[in-house]
Amino acid sequence: MIEHTAVQRQFPSGMACLRCDVGLPIADDDGGCPACAAEGHAANLRLVFSDAAPGRIVLPSADAVSLGEGGTPQVEAPDLAADAGLGRLSLKLEWCNPTGSHKDRMSAPLMARARERSAPLVVGASSGNAGLSLAAYAARAGLPSEIVTTPSMPAGARRAIRTHGARLVEVPDGAARWRHVGRRVAEGAFAATNYRMPAIGTNPFGIAGYKVLAVEIAAHGLPDLVVVPCARGDLLSGLLLGFLELGRGVPCLVAAEPFPRLARVLAGADYRESFPGRTAQLSIGGDTVTFQALHALRESRGRAVVADDAAARAAQARLGRAGFHAELSAAAAFAALVALGADGALAGRHAVAVLTGSGAGAMDRDETAATAQTPPFDHRGTR
Amino acid sequence: MIEHTAVQRQFPSGMACLRCDVGLPIADDDGGCPACAAEGHAANLRLVFSDAAPGRIVLPSADAVSLGEGGTPQVEAPDLAADAGLGRLSLKLEWCNPTGSHKDRMSAPLMARARERSAPLVVGASSGNAGLSLAAYAARAGLPSEIVTTPSMPAGARRAIRTHGARLVEVPDGAARWRHVGRRVAEGAFAATNYRMPAIGTNPFGIAGYKVLAVEIAAHGLPDLVVVPCARGDLLSGLLLGFLELGRGVPCLVAAEPFPRLARVLAGADYRESFPGRTAQLSIGGDTVTFQALHALRESRGRAVVADDAAARAAQARLGRAGFHAELSAAAAFAALVALGADGALAGRHAVAVLTGSGAGAMDRDETAATAQTPPFDHRGTR
Repeated sequence: MIEHTAVQRQFPSGMACLRCDVGLPIADDDGGCPACAAEGHAANLRLVFSDAAPGRIVLPSADAVSLGEGGTPQVEAPDLAADAGLGRLSLKLEWCNPTGSHKDRMSAPLMARARERSAPLVVGASSGNAGLSLAAYAARAGLPSEIVTTPSMPAGARRAIRTHGARLVEVPDGAARWRHVGRRVAEGAFAATNYRMPAIGTNPFGIAGYKVLAVEIAAHGLPDLVVVPCARGDLLSGLLLGFLELGRGVPCLVAAEPFPRLARVLAGADYRESFPGRTAQLSIGGDTVTFQALHALRESRGRAVVADDAAARAAQARLGRAGFHAELSAAAAFAALVALGADGALAGRHAVAVLTGSGAGAMDRDETAATAQTPPFDHRGTR
Repeated sequence: MIEHTAVQRQFPSGMACLRCDVGLPIADDDGGCPACAAEGHAANLRLVFSDAAPGRIVLPSADAVSLGEGGTPQVEAPDLAADAGLGRLSLKLEWCNPTGSHKDRMSAPLMARARERSAPLVVGASSGNAGLSLAAYAARAGLPSEIVTTPSMPAGARRAIRTHGARLVEVPDGAARWRHVGRRVAEGAFAATNYRMPAIGTNPFGIAGYKVLAVEIAAHGLPDLVVVPCARGDLLSGLLLGFLELGRGVPCLVAAEPFPRLARVLAGADYRESFPGRTAQLSIGGDTVTFQALHALRESRGRAVVADDAAARAAQARLGRAGFHAELSAAAAFAALVALGADGALAGRHAVAVLTGSGAGAMDRDETAATAQTPPFDHRGTR
């Protein structure tokens, strides 16, 4: 992984709730804050570090599991900036991570934690990028892994996951997938994705990995906005934590989503409701909203912007003609900027669009077949 | 692209022949050295810089065309080192480049040169990685491009190339492909791959991009060996030039090839002969050897090692179980090390294996289909 002067490593002293800020001992029970849960408000935790230096972010383990994640290119795109009426647009090419997506940043500290816990099995629910990343990092950590998926997983992603020796288990739909993970966890497995309903998000040890992305973005000058494709908000939440720890200011975080979920919550809906919708943006489907995503938008005075499949496809084509081949879900980040900037609201602003996965990668490789054979996404899946 | 203190930029003062060292003015006629050609010895040129500082390498343009290439992870793999009897094995993950392969390092200065020449069209022969990279960088440079391919190009690579607005032209076989490129060049197009017979290699402006890889490798400590998958030897030649310019010593360069070509030349055959063979290693097929490849092995006291498809598949599986998903041609680099180290010859040595492309990338995505439908490789193709 990237070694950066603004990144230190230290074992956390505890955990705290994102919602009520109560302090808790370190655990991996994946249920989030028990006090908030008792009130019916599922909310994720964050790691607390007793000795964090200002201007630096802290990663939770000295015993790194790395395949070289991070340090991805940030590329200026003046032509595309004009499309969104921006003063400056930087593209963060997260597909340049070792397994082809931003998920590697999460898998690295998560598998370090699993190894620290001597996990007999790592288990995660995924239809693509996360499963591939987990399988690779579990292999690197020397841990057996099981990826639970649905018929919508592209054939290429299946092949790639098996390359790493992971067991691939197919269940009929997303709800069954989370139940399967829950059963494995009851047997002693280490959960590497959300599996709780209502959805909470991934283990805070994993989310901490995304803080490094904030460091890398800030190294090119703190932007006004950072736009990320969003489903359960792990990336969004990790970015907020990173910018807060760095202490140089928090950009406006913008969640691009394929149909209104966070947008409805920001407009007054309860985040615990179900927000069904169909999309070909396989990496950011699902009908749930998490507290952590909402929290990141609120704390950053952020926005949720809908980029439907047509807008994402137009953005994908535009990016392609400029030299960038993004997967549909990643192109949605650029589509969201174009929508936001339509009325001149972004004039003179600097935005970073986080392009999470490549159009040549595992998720898009059999996209046509996958969307033809099955509903675009079963609405209860994780990324 | 990566900004590195050991990399400077300067317009070349001339060119020189790799074989006879004669100095020549700068040109893009792709025919290599005219004096050597007149003697029947096709040989590529290199760029000459009048003001190169020792300990630094020079790139040929101030007017960069970049998608963020370079700065790829170099990851230590102690378990895999043991397989080859090495003291230390580092894997250079070239699939973390923007379009998924090492080719991006070449495309960047090559497209800068094409733009400098106001090329009306960029044309290249490729069945995969090079075509995808050229299409993306031509788009970034604002230049129209045409990729000439054969039926063996995987469907995913075709889709990706078209995303960048490139015209895709299919011809029956590799020989027809080079003829087509030649015709376009006669019409004024800029050649972005070899098209001459006998084969020479790519324009020296492109090969200069690979010098940066030598800088990055040396930054982790000069290794004893660097192993690269090899067909026409662009990468091998650029690495040699880079290590020579850096002036800290030249590692033994090892060419991994799918069937004996360079190995036969090193054993006494004439490099201008044809060396037919069949392979599923699509990125490094073809029946030709170039002078530049031979030159790099000689100057580095290097070796050519055959990694046939069975050995490459075994290496691919082994890499996968360690967390690295390499395309078959890239896995051949590790297979070559295992073969070289079988008799304990590598004890205590440090090797870098350059993993040029990912198994999840464009070349391997439809591999099964491609190898089933057509002969594994038509023997006259470029990479």
